Amino acid sequence: MKKLRMATPGPTQVPQDILLAGAHEMIHHRSHLMTEVMEEINCQLPKIFRTSKDVYILLSSGTGAMEAAIANSFNRGEKVMVVSNGYFGERFADISKLFGLEVITVNSPWGTSVRIDKVKEAYANHPDIKGVLVVYSETSTGAVNDVKVIGDFFCKTDVLVIVDAISGLISHELFMDDWGLDIVLAASHKGFMMPPGLAFVAISTKAWEKLEGIHPSTYYFSFKRYRKFYPMAPSSPGVSLLMALKKSLELLKEEGLPECTARHAKIADATQQGLKALGFTLFVKEPNLRSNTVTTALSPPGLNASELLTKLNQQYGLTVTGGQGEYKGKMIRVGHIGGVDEIDLFGIFGAIEMVLVETGHHFERGVSFRALSEVLGKGVVRHA
Amino acid sequence: MKKLRMATPGPTQVPQDILLAGAHEMIHHRSHLMTEVMEEINCQLPKIFRTSKDVYILLSSGTGAMEAAIANSFNRGEKVMVVSNGYFGERFADISKLFGLEVITVNSPWGTSVRIDKVKEAYANHPDIKGVLVVYSETSTGAVNDVKVIGDFFCKTDVLVIVDAISGLISHELFMDDWGLDIVLAASHKGFMMPPGLAFVAISTKAWEKLEGIHPSTYYFSFKRYRKFYPMAPSSPGVSLLMALKKSLELLKEEGLPECTARHAKIADATQQGLKALGFTLFVKEPNLRSNTVTTALSPPGLNASELLTKLNQQYGLTVTGGQGEYKGKMIRVGHIGGVDEIDLFGIFGAIEMVLVETGHHFERGVSFRALSEVLGKGVVRHA
Repeated sequence: MKKLRMATPGPTQVPQDILLAGAHEMIHHRSHLMTEVMEEINCQLPKIFRTSKDVYILLSSGTGAMEAAIANSFNRGEKVMVVSNGYFGERFADISKLFGLEVITVNSPWGTSVRIDKVKEAYANHPDIKGVLVVYSETSTGAVNDVKVIGDFFCKTDVLVIVDAISGLISHELFMDDWGLDIVLAASHKGFMMPPGLAFVAISTKAWEKLEGIHPSTYYFSFKRYRKFYPMAPSSPGVSLLMALKKSLELLKEEGLPECTARHAKIADATQQGLKALGFTLFVKEPNLRSNTVTTALSPPGLNASELLTKLNQQYGLTVTGGQGEYKGKMIRVGHIGGVDEIDLFGIFGAIEMVLVETGHHFERGVSFRALSEVLGKGVVRHA
Repeated sequence: MKKLRMATPGPTQVPQDILLAGAHEMIHHRSHLMTEVMEEINCQLPKIFRTSKDVYILLSSGTGAMEAAIANSFNRGEKVMVVSNGYFGERFADISKLFGLEVITVNSPWGTSVRIDKVKEAYANHPDIKGVLVVYSETSTGAVNDVKVIGDFFCKTDVLVIVDAISGLISHELFMDDWGLDIVLAASHKGFMMPPGLAFVAISTKAWEKLEGIHPSTYYFSFKRYRKFYPMAPSSPGVSLLMALKKSLELLKEEGLPECTARHAKIADATQQGLKALGFTLFVKEPNLRSNTVTTALSPPGLNASELLTKLNQQYGLTVTGGQGEYKGKMIRVGHIGGVDEIDLFGIFGAIEMVLVETGHHFERGVSFRALSEVLGKGVVRHA
């Protein structure tokens, strides 16, 4: 028997109930049945974003939602600020340039978060920006950006705050309306613990005021078309994925959103302590900037991270992701978003310990278990 | 018990084997397992297009593929010819205009097909066009365009022939390479008898030569990114849909592509005869222009098509689509693509006959069955 396990920042493990909900017999997307499904979804989905606005459901990956936000919100030649501390921040900049926008980048080194004073300084130098694009949880580095503070700062200006919360929604608190966020993006294969395929876009009233004056440079992703057809989809929607989404929202409601976020925080904390106990160095130094989606850690001296990951996969069917860019072979990224629970974590660390023994790494067997059990056995406290 | 049945031109009925294949436990999109799945898919998929070229798999509806083809193939200001005889031809024109192209439209009334001499004439007047956009099977009208003749005519020019074969692939013959077609688009929820969510794009060598010189006006749909990451996807792919696609390709291989197309032709023929027997008037006059995807028919005098469709749905759980635009209430569109077989057709007509009796329509009970059984009981012959 070969069981598959995933400790990845998306796609994530998908609960069987959701997989089977997606295998529902096909129903027509303009039928009464579909309308009922959409009404249920449209009632629950905005609650996840903590918004009173409608949330549109795109049939695409998260990258499609990033493109959609940019293509709908700005005219060519307009200036935007990209707040970047990793791979997906860079992607925001790439897409913005492709759509003819002038891009001001506020960078922060990988593993850190962009400080609000640098954002304020850039805004002082470029008061003509029309939007700020920022990634909430950077899965490439495991660091979160403080989108609340950024929202606070820009909410009294006419600058739109566009947040890639693709991996940050659900796994972290996010209050779209209260925090003054204008466009919030998410995707199905992260905190929703679904297969990939759906992306979500919530749009504030302030954003709509700007969007009204824009000719979107996309037809497929046009938010105006989405609004026109709401609550249905403008083109053939991903029916099977919508059935899975309905089940996902039921499960999230059952667990409770705050409880679900707390689970993510606790598991992230346990993962951090487990890896430290094994001699790894956490990549994100500041505890309160560490993502609940993925824990990034540099391997101990003498340990080849790529070899570890390959063995985990080949011997135990466990997928853990590695570092990107210059961190390839030096970093592991342990994902713990979506359908991962506390007990799964013991299995993940069991496999890691066994491979570490095999590679000759020196440590006391069971040390990571002790760390896990200490964290998981009590309330949610974040350790340094 | 309430069973659901669909006689729609997409989404179509999905065989249970495909639904369950899509419920496969999640696997990571950059894993060895996924590579194996993609290799199997990439080996089989081009055979469906009758091409030696790679076929890219987009995570989108068919409309996304239409946008992708346009955004990748042309620069703003370039001129294209749209060959249009229905709703989806109009969509090609709309998207082209949105991307800043100059559009020459060669129209033909709904229910007919565009004649090649009109295409030639338009080309003589506009020899500077860079592409011809044409829908193979127009699901809005039930008419097919002769894309073979159009491919033949333009293959010696530098004009790209872009074919929306979204509902036309599999249900009709299509030989991409032999017919000189440059970009062929398809989607999962049609002949592939899958849930909606994947779109397919095959690109000729001639098309790639033009595409090399274009900066695609999309990031998400960039064919250059697709080529770079091939055989894997550039962004998170629709893993569950890819598992379903693998099964769909297995089923298609088992049935045989010519046999599958012949099944569609036979069922289309039977549907036409069944509707005629009940007093409907086929909307597409020329038999050889009728689509194997969907049969369009005007209801007999005194019969309200919308009422018929509503009753079919409410009383028998059967979804049949109605006419679009000016044909709303006057036309029915019976879809018979994908997972519909001969025996399903008897159930569809059984429901139609029962509702017709109820509405007071005069006809001999069983007359449509006789017509079906005559067609289905013999080889594939197309009746006028």
